[in-house]
Amino acid sequence: MKKLKVGVAMLMLLCFAGGTLAADDLAQSVALHQAALDMIWLLIAASLVFFMQAGFAMVEIGLTRAKNAGNIIMKNLMDFAAGALFYWAIGWALMYGSDVGGLFGFSDFFVSGTDSVLYRDWMFQVVFAATAATIVSGAVAERTKFTAYLLYSVVVSAVIYPISGHWIWGGGWLGSLGFHDFAGSTVVHSVGGWAALMGTLALGPRIGKYVTNGKKVTSKAIPGHNLPLASLGVFILWFGWYGFNAGSTLSGTDLTMANVAVTTTLAASAGAVGAMIISWIQFGKPDVSMSLNGALAGLVGITAPTAVVSPVGAILIGLIAGVLVVYSVEFIDKVLHIDDPVGAISVHGVCGAWGTLAVGLFSTAEGMKGLFYGGGFTQLGIQALGVVAVGAWVTASAGILFFVIRKFNGLRVDAADELKGLDLAEHNAEAYSGFQIFTTM
Amino acid sequence: MKKLKVGVAMLMLLCFAGGTLAADDLAQSVALHQAALDMIWLLIAASLVFFMQAGFAMVEIGLTRAKNAGNIIMKNLMDFAAGALFYWAIGWALMYGSDVGGLFGFSDFFVSGTDSVLYRDWMFQVVFAATAATIVSGAVAERTKFTAYLLYSVVVSAVIYPISGHWIWGGGWLGSLGFHDFAGSTVVHSVGGWAALMGTLALGPRIGKYVTNGKKVTSKAIPGHNLPLASLGVFILWFGWYGFNAGSTLSGTDLTMANVAVTTTLAASAGAVGAMIISWIQFGKPDVSMSLNGALAGLVGITAPTAVVSPVGAILIGLIAGVLVVYSVEFIDKVLHIDDPVGAISVHGVCGAWGTLAVGLFSTAEGMKGLFYGGGFTQLGIQALGVVAVGAWVTASAGILFFVIRKFNGLRVDAADELKGLDLAEHNAEAYSGFQIFTTM
Amino acid sequence: MKKLKVGVAMLMLLCFAGGTLAADDLAQSVALHQAALDMIWLLIAASLVFFMQAGFAMVEIGLTRAKNAGNIIMKNLMDFAAGALFYWAIGWALMYGSDVGGLFGFSDFFVSGTDSVLYRDWMFQVVFAATAATIVSGAVAERTKFTAYLLYSVVVSAVIYPISGHWIWGGGWLGSLGFHDFAGSTVVHSVGGWAALMGTLALGPRIGKYVTNGKKVTSKAIPGHNLPLASLGVFILWFGWYGFNAGSTLSGTDLTMANVAVTTTLAASAGAVGAMIISWIQFGKPDVSMSLNGALAGLVGITAPTAVVSPVGAILIGLIAGVLVVYSVEFIDKVLHIDDPVGAISVHGVCGAWGTLAVGLFSTAEGMKGLFYGGGFTQLGIQALGVVAVGAWVTASAGILFFVIRKFNGLRVDAADELKGLDLAEHNAEAYSGFQIFTTM
Repeated sequence: MKKLKVGVAMLMLLCFAGGTLAADDLAQSVALHQAALDMIWLLIAASLVFFMQAGFAMVEIGLTRAKNAGNIIMKNLMDFAAGALFYWAIGWALMYGSDVGGLFGFSDFFVSGTDSVLYRDWMFQVVFAATAATIVSGAVAERTKFTAYLLYSVVVSAVIYPISGHWIWGGGWLGSLGFHDFAGSTVVHSVGGWAALMGTLALGPRIGKYVTNGKKVTSKAIPGHNLPLASLGVFILWFGWYGFNAGSTLSGTDLTMANVAVTTTLAASAGAVGAMIISWIQFGKPDVSMSLNGALAGLVGITAPTAVVSPVGAILIGLIAGVLVVYSVEFIDKVLHIDDPVGAISVHGVCGAWGTLAVGLFSTAEGMKGLFYGGGFTQLGIQALGVVAVGAWVTASAGILFFVIRKFNGLRVDAADELKGLDLAEHNAEAYSGFQIFTTM
Repeated sequence: MKKLKVGVAMLMLLCFAGGTLAADDLAQSVALHQAALDMIWLLIAASLVFFMQAGFAMVEIGLTRAKNAGNIIMKNLMDFAAGALFYWAIGWALMYGSDVGGLFGFSDFFVSGTDSVLYRDWMFQVVFAATAATIVSGAVAERTKFTAYLLYSVVVSAVIYPISGHWIWGGGWLGSLGFHDFAGSTVVHSVGGWAALMGTLALGPRIGKYVTNGKKVTSKAIPGHNLPLASLGVFILWFGWYGFNAGSTLSGTDLTMANVAVTTTLAASAGAVGAMIISWIQFGKPDVSMSLNGALAGLVGITAPTAVVSPVGAILIGLIAGVLVVYSVEFIDKVLHIDDPVGAISVHGVCGAWGTLAVGLFSTAEGMKGLFYGGGFTQLGIQALGVVAVGAWVTASAGILFFVIRKFNGLRVDAADELKGLDLAEHNAEAYSGFQIFTTM
Repeated sequence: MKKLKVGVAMLMLLCFAGGTLAADDLAQSVALHQAALDMIWLLIAASLVFFMQAGFAMVEIGLTRAKNAGNIIMKNLMDFAAGALFYWAIGWALMYGSDVGGLFGFSDFFVSGTDSVLYRDWMFQVVFAATAATIVSGAVAERTKFTAYLLYSVVVSAVIYPISGHWIWGGGWLGSLGFHDFAGSTVVHSVGGWAALMGTLALGPRIGKYVTNGKKVTSKAIPGHNLPLASLGVFILWFGWYGFNAGSTLSGTDLTMANVAVTTTLAASAGAVGAMIISWIQFGKPDVSMSLNGALAGLVGITAPTAVVSPVGAILIGLIAGVLVVYSVEFIDKVLHIDDPVGAISVHGVCGAWGTLAVGLFSTAEGMKGLFYGGGFTQLGIQALGVVAVGAWVTASAGILFFVIRKFNGLRVDAADELKGLDLAEHNAEAYSGFQIFTTM
């Protein structure tokens, strides 16, 4: 309080004595304001992105069964809590430390010191790392051992995410090639999506999800238990995405943050509308959870190209993402028989890839024009290379990780525990004490 | 990352070389900082107002029955998603395009270009448009066809809201007369409230709401199914209202934003306390949903006068709004037999009108003093004119709209679907799978 | 709109005419920007802290039984609504008015005038006052008369909190001694915690909580009814804590706000991990609500030392808070037989004291080095004095308060009402109409 009052008093003095203020002092104040604008912008954006953890938790809780809600809470809480500690100790160093051959960083382990700019940047980055980790939680829900999930979560935050992140944002080889991923369609979302794919493959489907009858395999719908919470989660995620995308200007005086906010808004809107229309056509009625996922699909899709596309481009990108997510969810479930309870592979993996490629199609930026704006195939090729490279890295490393966890720790709870629900089995908790739950299966 | 680091490095250079910095460069930095302060302030405010969509969804879900929760989610999601696309294509042009005779704007359809200030302003305005549209959702809940709601929502965002908005904020005739509506008691809330009134009149009450026994009509209470979510919604709305009101300074260096935040806080508080006391007197016990609505009533009431009243004025405005909302809800339900499940007409229509008139009573601003501060009846008269004019426009246009929708699309689901619930009937969804619901009626 | 456009146009003029801009004007703009940075930072931080009310409500609802959820909503709403009105009328004056003998302030009752900086400071402080009051709500849940709670809440906001607040932040004796509490481990959280302790002692336990069998007293677990809402509440609180702690720089250009954000993040993370590990060891399984409380414990613990400790210090402080909260909850319940349904005494009282002492152990700041950094016992002694003094003040004043309320108003509902639930008994409401609830006891 006192400190502030003195500060203000001094400034008012400066103000009234303005005429005699030395140019040196003015210049110092102006430089401080630049630093403060960057600081305020990034810290508020980081807080919004942190809040997305609540969004993920609510979406995943809402779209799964009541008997596993407590376990999802624990996974999401620990994604951030354990993840942040490991991203502090190791992850930051591998992502933003001194570059080693374009492949990874290697310095600044256990972030410390007195540099506020370093702390600001770590703060803005740790919330992105946690987002990547938490995406997997929904895909592997309702059957994963808690210890296995903890191990996975820590390794993703400490190693897998930072390595490919270094390639693109940390001064590594992909960024040097001109690969453009403004806020992380690939860096964050696809990484989460491909890890989710490997997790679901390693785990197999939930008991009762696919019923084999002779040669025919039927996919049974296992409805989520709380659509209101799922919708709340989507609104929280959308809200947080303004920090995620607009904050990625990384500067409080880069006024294109407004363009970013607008393209983000339009793509999310178009994604929701697109998914609603396709679900209406496919299933005969406009589907609630598909429309919600459509909004997320639009958001994931616009995350890479948000700063380099026009409003019309953003709407098309979002619309296609909304369409894509419906077909992808259906294909992964009904054709591939991969059991992803919340559609994370489709929303984050497939639409993350789509958004990354969309840069090469819709970019209007000088020097990296997209195919549809006369830029030819150059940028599109670079974007495709990035999608493939990161996909290869994550499927390989996460594949090995899940294999090792399965071998040495076990990946899946036993059948009795799965049927009872992970809340009782893993945490001795009931999410809704006093309510009677009639669980599917 | 790199970009930022270079920027900071340059600034530090500037800083240490301050003495020799040319005055030109300093002036440019200072101008950029002004633009950045406006930008950051408005984008953060817009994000907060966006988050109010989650608040509306939770309030409406909580105060209605479990069998219709999924439908409310879809309506609230599409209010924003479809509404934003239409406000981008048409609404902005009619509201802020070049003025035509003081009646509407007409330019800048399909907002585009490279001007970040334009994008910033659109972003701040689209979230207000969506708020107006979403208010109706609760009033027409539990019986409206989803297609009918979609049509309504799109027309309000594209045409009805922008036209009266142009009159007041877009350079139209009402603003020219000196009508004062700082953040939208009339522009946003009353528009939603009067549209809600027309919707409920066009639809009629829910099945079983009014029981006729000879000549006597009894109103049956149909309790909402989730007070915790309703309360969460109110807290989210109150939180978002700091963006709604304080953001409406439209400038990051207008320090009266603090006065706005304080009057907003005090009016909301007084509204909650006022409604609690009146409900206690009327019903014998302090009522939970009335107290929650009282906070919203105080917020709606202070929205127009927030920048021109004292703390005492704000408390009185909020207190009266809190009292008013209880009597209004009772009157509309018990006397008029209009079925408004969440009290939207009272909260947004009646208290929006009250707040608009309150400018003419409590304003302390030079040149537009209110009646109680020696300003006579001039401002009050202008405010009343605005309330009547906007009321006439919205009831007429929304009345025609609902009439046309009813004629060509149908407005209401059939009785069997209404009894079954809109989630199953309209979306083939269950909001709470696994829970047994004993629905009233 | 118009105003803003004119402003921007003027600035662009200034910008392009930079060369000739008088130094006076520049200096005035720079001073305005300083004021605007402080303003924006504090108003956004205040909004985030306001949102913590939703977090407290969700945590308390989630960790108690469904039959009392509506009552908790009313208490949390009124904590803020009535509390804000009294903090405006009286509390601010006692906390920040002209100092009287170092003991309390006494001026500026009924905050008014035109000074935006005063309004800004009030806005930032009222949300802290409301936090202190609301902490008690959970501890006295499920058995307190609503009128009794209203009386308590108003007196804490108006008198008890402001007095000790004045000692530390308002220019009083403790601050003068060098007591350091950056964002309120003691000023806010311990005050709430000790008041909670007195409330639970005055009330006694819930019916059925402790079963006496001969001489042996057994503590029965009464599980909360909604873990998803409790987890949402914790995420909201954590999110809001970035405003609580980083906002407490009280200046928008104090770049150490980044250090604060980082230590806050690491302590909360370590708290969650610490509580999870200890609960795993103690109960055999990682406990959901203990881990959630661990995150809160870490946040409460870091609140005092956040600006003066290193990342490693923050992690240790959080970890110890997370361990402490588990043992404290167990000790208070199983040994002392004090019934605190949500663990508020442990989270806010015990960990608030711990965080305050931690300044004297871990501080790296020049002039107030902690014991572990070569500062000896001086600072630790001052911190301990503050803990004891505030503890004495609050237990005495809150003790008297609860005694007076019990004598003249009654503190506790009768047994029949407690069994029926406070929602029906006190508010004639059902939180979950349509759901069948099988309440414990």
